[in-house]
Amino acid sequence: MKELELLYEGKSKQIFKTDNDDCVVIRFKDDTAAFYNIKRAVIEQKGRITCDISSMVLDYMNRHNINTHFIERVGDDGQLCRVVEHIPVEVIVRNVVAGSMAKRLGMDEGIVPENTIFDLVLRRSDLGDPLINDHHAVALGLLSYEELAKMYEMSAAINNCLIELYDKVGIMVVDFKIEFGRAADGSLVLADELSPDTCRLWDKETKERMDKDRFRRDLGRVRETYEEVAKRLHNVL
Amino acid sequence: MKELELLYEGKSKQIFKTDNDDCVVIRFKDDTAAFYNIKRAVIEQKGRITCDISSMVLDYMNRHNINTHFIERVGDDGQLCRVVEHIPVEVIVRNVVAGSMAKRLGMDEGIVPENTIFDLVLRRSDLGDPLINDHHAVALGLLSYEELAKMYEMSAAINNCLIELYDKVGIMVVDFKIEFGRAADGSLVLADELSPDTCRLWDKETKERMDKDRFRRDLGRVRETYEEVAKRLHNVL
Repeated sequence: MKELELLYEGKSKQIFKTDNDDCVVIRFKDDTAAFYNIKRAVIEQKGRITCDISSMVLDYMNRHNINTHFIERVGDDGQLCRVVEHIPVEVIVRNVVAGSMAKRLGMDEGIVPENTIFDLVLRRSDLGDPLINDHHAVALGLLSYEELAKMYEMSAAINNCLIELYDKVGIMVVDFKIEFGRAADGSLVLADELSPDTCRLWDKETKERMDKDRFRRDLGRVRETYEEVAKRLHNVL
Repeated sequence: MKELELLYEGKSKQIFKTDNDDCVVIRFKDDTAAFYNIKRAVIEQKGRITCDISSMVLDYMNRHNINTHFIERVGDDGQLCRVVEHIPVEVIVRNVVAGSMAKRLGMDEGIVPENTIFDLVLRRSDLGDPLINDHHAVALGLLSYEELAKMYEMSAAINNCLIELYDKVGIMVVDFKIEFGRAADGSLVLADELSPDTCRLWDKETKERMDKDRFRRDLGRVRETYEEVAKRLHNVL
């Protein structure tokens, strides 16, 4: 597999064409951004560490019959991935109330609801990535009701899988965001990273934040904490 | 039925106790407010006209097997209603894209989606009445998933009933908001008004706004247009 020209560069990723039209290489950058790019920093080694964690987690998902775009790791900070048609929505899965949901609904962070919460967000940064519901997604022509049901079913399976994995290493999965794509046959595929950049992870014992909130909230030791997550996962995988 | 002391006074309604604990009298005021009470006015006769329209429409719903709180009209601006336990959410039913949805999702007003859109809104003015989804409502302890399904089913039936009624008088039901309550036996009851104050109604031919947008957007002839809606309904009811 030969890595060719850059197809896309975002805040934290680069996507490269390869000599196989069905595959791309995704490279994880050290750049990090929050609050619509207002807060920015370069966190040394972050690309390598989030690529490491996300590769372990997506490989774990693949082995648990969850279709992901991940094929294999390429070097320190890259992943060979299947090309999929990206769907411009994001699903946020929440096991514990935190972040934007706490603020939006006036709830305290840390409340554990009896039900799992699935938020649907439209990826339109010019509109502030608004929360939407299934009817909006259908009216916008983004997904059918059947695909939405399948997407939530997959999101619940991914959540169970993540909880099971992180439970082994003393970490609580508070919430995470995922995006999906359509494979050539139309089936849905998880097409995103799963790392401390996209998951809220709290140490079970100490409730210490082990995720991007360390950067967002200036809690310090961002790289060291990401490395701790990677180390714990390597111990069980 | 004797009307006793005032129990509650809101921006556009007064609720009075009666000598029957199962019933209240709701009086419609001439006061009108928009944009979180920033824009206010007194529109002469509005209480009488919206009470007239809402009484006709809720009576029509009752006769079409939709449970509402409405029992009968009391004087010019009052309704005798069943007491229900109010549920602090609002369902917005949309047949045509307009208002907050158009703004929120960057869509043009007037687009007719293939599906009916149901929005769920949390009635918390201190939080800006945020859009929520079913999972949030359940996590907040407001309704069960089963009640939510029933509420959408009733909302769809109310929408069909409204469309059928207004179609007879050359008016398009663009969208409307409704609130529900629980009766003594736990069943859901439509417990709201249905008038040009709460429904977007456009003349089928001219697309003229025949609702509260005339007030919100300074289109003039608010009272006259509301009276025209009442007149057309009286012709067929």
